[in-house]
Amino acid sequence: MTEFELINRYFNRAAECSSVVLGVGDDCSLLQLPEQRQLAISVDTLVADVHFPANADPASIAERALCVSLSDLAAMGAEPLWFTLCLTLPEASEPWVSAFSRGLFRVASEYRCELVGGDTTRGPLAISIQVMGAVSPDCAFTRGGAQVGDLVYVTGTLGDGAAGLAGLKQMLKLDSKAFEYLSRRYYHPVPRFDAARKIVGLASAAIDISDGLVADLGHICRASEVAANIHLECLPLSPALLQWASLSQQHQWALGGGDDYQLCFTVSPSNVEAVETLIDRGLDACVIGDIVSGSDVHPYLRGERFSSSSTGYQHFG
Amino acid sequence: MTEFELINRYFNRAAECSSVVLGVGDDCSLLQLPEQRQLAISVDTLVADVHFPANADPASIAERALCVSLSDLAAMGAEPLWFTLCLTLPEASEPWVSAFSRGLFRVASEYRCELVGGDTTRGPLAISIQVMGAVSPDCAFTRGGAQVGDLVYVTGTLGDGAAGLAGLKQMLKLDSKAFEYLSRRYYHPVPRFDAARKIVGLASAAIDISDGLVADLGHICRASEVAANIHLECLPLSPALLQWASLSQQHQWALGGGDDYQLCFTVSPSNVEAVETLIDRGLDACVIGDIVSGSDVHPYLRGERFSSSSTGYQHFG
Repeated sequence: MTEFELINRYFNRAAECSSVVLGVGDDCSLLQLPEQRQLAISVDTLVADVHFPANADPASIAERALCVSLSDLAAMGAEPLWFTLCLTLPEASEPWVSAFSRGLFRVASEYRCELVGGDTTRGPLAISIQVMGAVSPDCAFTRGGAQVGDLVYVTGTLGDGAAGLAGLKQMLKLDSKAFEYLSRRYYHPVPRFDAARKIVGLASAAIDISDGLVADLGHICRASEVAANIHLECLPLSPALLQWASLSQQHQWALGGGDDYQLCFTVSPSNVEAVETLIDRGLDACVIGDIVSGSDVHPYLRGERFSSSSTGYQHFG
Repeated sequence: MTEFELINRYFNRAAECSSVVLGVGDDCSLLQLPEQRQLAISVDTLVADVHFPANADPASIAERALCVSLSDLAAMGAEPLWFTLCLTLPEASEPWVSAFSRGLFRVASEYRCELVGGDTTRGPLAISIQVMGAVSPDCAFTRGGAQVGDLVYVTGTLGDGAAGLAGLKQMLKLDSKAFEYLSRRYYHPVPRFDAARKIVGLASAAIDISDGLVADLGHICRASEVAANIHLECLPLSPALLQWASLSQQHQWALGGGDDYQLCFTVSPSNVEAVETLIDRGLDACVIGDIVSGSDVHPYLRGERFSSSSTGYQHFG
């Protein structure tokens, strides 16, 4: 058995799910999509020192990589089914792969998403994950459904991912409790399937916030051919962010920091009452603005147009 | 528009296929699998200077990457539907991306396989492609169906991919005609859908030869719990290989050279006549040996056991 085959063994687990007709180990995997469902797919590549520190804990890298991809399924209203993993490694380090696979399967089990294929190659550390899920026809949340008059909601709190990364890079002073909370928000983003399931049939458009609120809500605006006004005093911020970040950092990270993986969604006036009822019953979402005619996202602070240079995490890809 | 968005535009074409409900540009793509079909998927990563020379023609890199992945669908008896592309680039070079996308869409059109998603990131040059196809339940060729008494067939000619790579690396002297033929065999492997469609229902097991005949037939033997005897004088070799490679290079590349992407398949005695009829009618395949009890692949030369150190292209992954 070669080093390579040994490494692959870490990922070759018998499929537990009846939708996997033939799993890892042949030329292709064979998969059975549930009846009357469309296939939803999304793929992300994470490169060491571009998307995560190369020396980060391998289990955390794996957990984050899979959660980030799963978040795209949640943002579409799809249920996770399967994923594939392309892992490029500078050397075949068994301890690294062992820890990586442990993190990967922890998340895979939590979200019932089965590993059904992949490729392991030698090269600079990088991870590509393709997630596949199922969605009922006409039930998917797209980016193009927002209309003038809709309200704009976000789930959870904003800016924590960027603050967590700043903390990890020792560019933000934090006590141990805040460090633990914020770094966890960076490494362990939670794909918001829980929220997505609740707003099926109620949201007119949705996206997950990976590149920053302004950038991602901007995608909804472009696809829907509308504009959005948002109000900085309405943005949901965590106690850790409020305590440890300056006001300008709070604004910058909530508007432009990526890596939050919360959902941003729009709701037509006729569905607002239903969404507010969900919020009363525990959905952690709040209104941050509304959809108007025009283009782009316009942030306001106490009624005045707020100008900020940070309109999104401008990574290369 | 950022450099990154500009680059992405090269890959953002309107889907031409009705199975693509929602194409590139949302959180997920939405796809409609044909009725009564299973999804067949396969994913491959190609890293610069590991799997192809970094300075190679970008169109050729793209064509080869997609053909290599499509070959896995052919080896499964699946029909191509869609693919995703993860492209990692050291810099956002528009001429490079333009040429790459031209090659990619040329192959995609030829095999009617639609680009439905992807990710473009900065980093060391690497390409991951996931192909998705459809196969009727119980019609897929797996690796595990070979039985004692089956004959072993291969399509096309063997060793040309390895000889082409040797020619490209100037490690094999060739005239211009042989160079053109062999380098094309390396850069433009042909996924053998034509042959796969003919042998549906007739082959007991199949694989595509990507790592070399001995290694790949070895996968069939392991999955089927059998052994294979193969005869070197039966291996189909191209005129270019016969003319320019030494006898020992011919043996080495035909047995252990990867990158041929021909099909190796097994046929039970009851189906041999039907396959031979297909061959009489133009299927370019021939018998190279038979399946026996035991394990591993055993090459013979003029009836004597042939021992060679090259039992497969031992790349890291």
